[in-house]
Amino acid sequence: MNGAESLLRTFVAAGVDTCFANPGTSEMHFVAALDRQSEMRCVLGLFEGVVTGAADGYGRMTGTPACTLLHLGPGLGNGIANLHNARRAQVPLINVVGDHATYHRALDAPLHSDIDSLAKAVSGWVHHATSAMDVAEDAAKAVQASLQPPGQVATLVLPADCAWNEARGPAEPLTARTAPEVPEARIQAIADILKQNQSRTAFLLSHPATLGRPLERLGQIAAHTGAELITDTFVTRMERGAGRPRLTALQYFGEMAFEQLRNFKHVIRVGAREPVSFFAYTDKPSRIAPEGTQFHLLAERHENIDGALLELCERLDIGKNSRTPIEHAKPVRPTGSLDPESVGQAIAFALPDQAIIVNEGATAATGIPSATANAAEHDWLDLMGGAIGQGIPVSVGAAIACPDRKVLSLNGDGSAMYTIQGLWTQAREQLDVTSIIFSNRKYAILQIEFMRTGTLSPGPKAMGMLDLTSPELNFVAMAASMGVPGTRVETLEDLNQALSASFSEPGPSLIEIPL
Amino acid sequence: MNGAESLLRTFVAAGVDTCFANPGTSEMHFVAALDRQSEMRCVLGLFEGVVTGAADGYGRMTGTPACTLLHLGPGLGNGIANLHNARRAQVPLINVVGDHATYHRALDAPLHSDIDSLAKAVSGWVHHATSAMDVAEDAAKAVQASLQPPGQVATLVLPADCAWNEARGPAEPLTARTAPEVPEARIQAIADILKQNQSRTAFLLSHPATLGRPLERLGQIAAHTGAELITDTFVTRMERGAGRPRLTALQYFGEMAFEQLRNFKHVIRVGAREPVSFFAYTDKPSRIAPEGTQFHLLAERHENIDGALLELCERLDIGKNSRTPIEHAKPVRPTGSLDPESVGQAIAFALPDQAIIVNEGATAATGIPSATANAAEHDWLDLMGGAIGQGIPVSVGAAIACPDRKVLSLNGDGSAMYTIQGLWTQAREQLDVTSIIFSNRKYAILQIEFMRTGTLSPGPKAMGMLDLTSPELNFVAMAASMGVPGTRVETLEDLNQALSASFSEPGPSLIEIPL
Repeated sequence: MNGAESLLRTFVAAGVDTCFANPGTSEMHFVAALDRQSEMRCVLGLFEGVVTGAADGYGRMTGTPACTLLHLGPGLGNGIANLHNARRAQVPLINVVGDHATYHRALDAPLHSDIDSLAKAVSGWVHHATSAMDVAEDAAKAVQASLQPPGQVATLVLPADCAWNEARGPAEPLTARTAPEVPEARIQAIADILKQNQSRTAFLLSHPATLGRPLERLGQIAAHTGAELITDTFVTRMERGAGRPRLTALQYFGEMAFEQLRNFKHVIRVGAREPVSFFAYTDKPSRIAPEGTQFHLLAERHENIDGALLELCERLDIGKNSRTPIEHAKPVRPTGSLDPESVGQAIAFALPDQAIIVNEGATAATGIPSATANAAEHDWLDLMGGAIGQGIPVSVGAAIACPDRKVLSLNGDGSAMYTIQGLWTQAREQLDVTSIIFSNRKYAILQIEFMRTGTLSPGPKAMGMLDLTSPELNFVAMAASMGVPGTRVETLEDLNQALSASFSEPGPSLIEIPL
Repeated sequence: MNGAESLLRTFVAAGVDTCFANPGTSEMHFVAALDRQSEMRCVLGLFEGVVTGAADGYGRMTGTPACTLLHLGPGLGNGIANLHNARRAQVPLINVVGDHATYHRALDAPLHSDIDSLAKAVSGWVHHATSAMDVAEDAAKAVQASLQPPGQVATLVLPADCAWNEARGPAEPLTARTAPEVPEARIQAIADILKQNQSRTAFLLSHPATLGRPLERLGQIAAHTGAELITDTFVTRMERGAGRPRLTALQYFGEMAFEQLRNFKHVIRVGAREPVSFFAYTDKPSRIAPEGTQFHLLAERHENIDGALLELCERLDIGKNSRTPIEHAKPVRPTGSLDPESVGQAIAFALPDQAIIVNEGATAATGIPSATANAAEHDWLDLMGGAIGQGIPVSVGAAIACPDRKVLSLNGDGSAMYTIQGLWTQAREQLDVTSIIFSNRKYAILQIEFMRTGTLSPGPKAMGMLDLTSPELNFVAMAASMGVPGTRVETLEDLNQALSASFSEPGPSLIEIPL
């Protein structure tokens, strides 16, 4: 058994059975070993940004790592933007980056580069393998590292000779570290705040408080105490829809988040950090909370959030089955004109039960969260690191992870063009993904940012850098060229029909919405 | 004047007047400053790999740097593969990477990342600006660094407050370092070898020995001594075509390069290094020259190659105007079937005078260099770092640099999909670029590499990773969706006509060739 096979077997034994790949010559032995390891599924991407974004989407939906297979430094480089997003999402993810044979590196052949520096910038754990004999154990450590709570990017650099030389065999899986418990004193302090402040108290949540048992408990606590549930502006994964506790996201722009936070005296952090603005501005503070806001910590993201919430429920005398039914009105099929608001209503109406929404709709999608609050139960995945071009890739990974669920990805036209190649993988794997492209033919967020400065008046050259009208992109033709059928809707009725058709048929499709 | 304007003015004063950009919020002040600096041309790319590849192509054709404008770490990340290629091409190139304001970085906002580690991996010079007051001087240093012989990637990280705060004004251009002279003793040693060994001697060349006066002198020396002119397997830029000295590239596969080098006892390095194989293999040496080959150094790539060749000519008593006319047969319009050989002949026949060929045709284009040896005079630009996805971007930059010349880019279908977004920039700027896509619907090089191992027998899963047939990519529809007209040729006659039409009409077009 060579190193590549020992690595693959170790992965499968540890539950890592999905590989998103864009391989090259230095990864040949890994690729060849795939056929000797039937349990490993391998999914090809035509570009590494698709590969790494897909692994992010997979990790978000399963809580376990997929691995990527990348071709030396440039392959890792192409994947870096979406690895940056995955790092911010704090999902388990393992990169296997092929490298030249150990003895070949000193020759500085054309594809040689400083892989470790690139890996370091996007990984919580990096290891450069040195011997085929140790590769299986390296792989076991990579899996363990990726699962370090709450999850992180682990990168294993695999020189070609560590893949092709004789190895010892697969290694035993290593036990993943468990999330540290939250100290009782901290929980009691939060209980005291909640008992004493029945109004003007909010929880500020991030993943994984936004799903599963933690979310249920938070819903009980909110119903019991009157505290509100606010999430970070962007969340790795949250469970939403009819009957579930209502989560409101912190606004993107600092001045709007400030107004939102002014309603609360006490903000209890569950996974989330104290909010800061996405960018700095000449005339606005980077820390966006009002001065009077008192932040309190219940649990950091890597701690045992569910345990802390269970304990908190007990201290607040909330019974196990005290769930209050949450009122909700079923969405109706919208009529009228096609605009951002009605688009949200159309999605809310058409959304199948247990769908997964991948949100990279940016300015065009701002109304969709509120419109879909009462839609059928669904998961919602945001762009976590601000590096656009993950909507299509993450939808690929989510669909591979959850083959029985429909995936809806929301994309700005500018964003979609970064990793448009992902449509081909959707077609190749016949994934149940509906990709919406909001075609406003501009980098709208930058036009808004220019306006917000109040002082920068962009001239024609500056405005030209934000303009996508010349030539116009035809996303329906582009999707078709990669095997994904599509339609461009001109009316709200078109959209209602297109969504209904897309969700009722298997395989991928694309809907271009001019806005 | 703010920092951004002082930076732009410094660039323009130093001759840097072209910017390839994909900006974001942190670069707003740079973008706004464009309208106050009329001499700076700014070209938008929909993806940063297009931006950095275009800057590479521009630098190759002008010998001076273009600058890029990239959005924080992820923007730089998306550009890294083509920056790796540019680093290997050793072209002058300046990256301006926007960053959060200096005081905002410690808050670890979502887009914060370790930009410096990413930059280090692909740059010969990295500087992280700290004050708007110093940005102009930082910019002057970046230009100087980029021009350090033979040229290198210089990266200036520009925090937002260094762009928006008050600055001192533009800085004076700094004198670029000149190439060190080659010691006379080294030149004499080479002269002695050439005098004593009238046969079995070759020059091994890299850019810039492959163009201009150095190439002319090498042609004279070759004619005078009988020495042959061999280039590295891949060359940043070489001048070829009817009447020019004939250059033969070292073969890609080590065993073939070995056979080629066996013909020579003495190999004189001019810019090139001792050849090593592109990848390592279990059963093949990484150093590919036969043991008996004696390598001699005339000049390293950063040294004064032209001066050394002039001096060598004098020591060999070669007069200034001793150019021997080089025989050549004019290419004829090919007839027959459409195959790799006839494709090369069709290109050779149709190629306009002073065209620029950007070669990323990989396995499909191996016959084109010999077919075009007698075509009209043209420049030839290779993929230098092995990171596929630069053919379309480099053609963009070459066309911007040389608006009076036709550009022909040769692309494998697999390669083209990495940075296909560059077609949109071709359409937007109405560049005279003809993009050929060789559609063999597979990663053919990897299938060949599997065969060459002789021992790895890829099974169906492995072969699936090299297969692009399901679904088939329609490059004509894809190009049209981005505003570039295209045609798919089925016969050689189709190709003859498509090339003729494409070269006779302004603006971009695409030709898909099934092979």
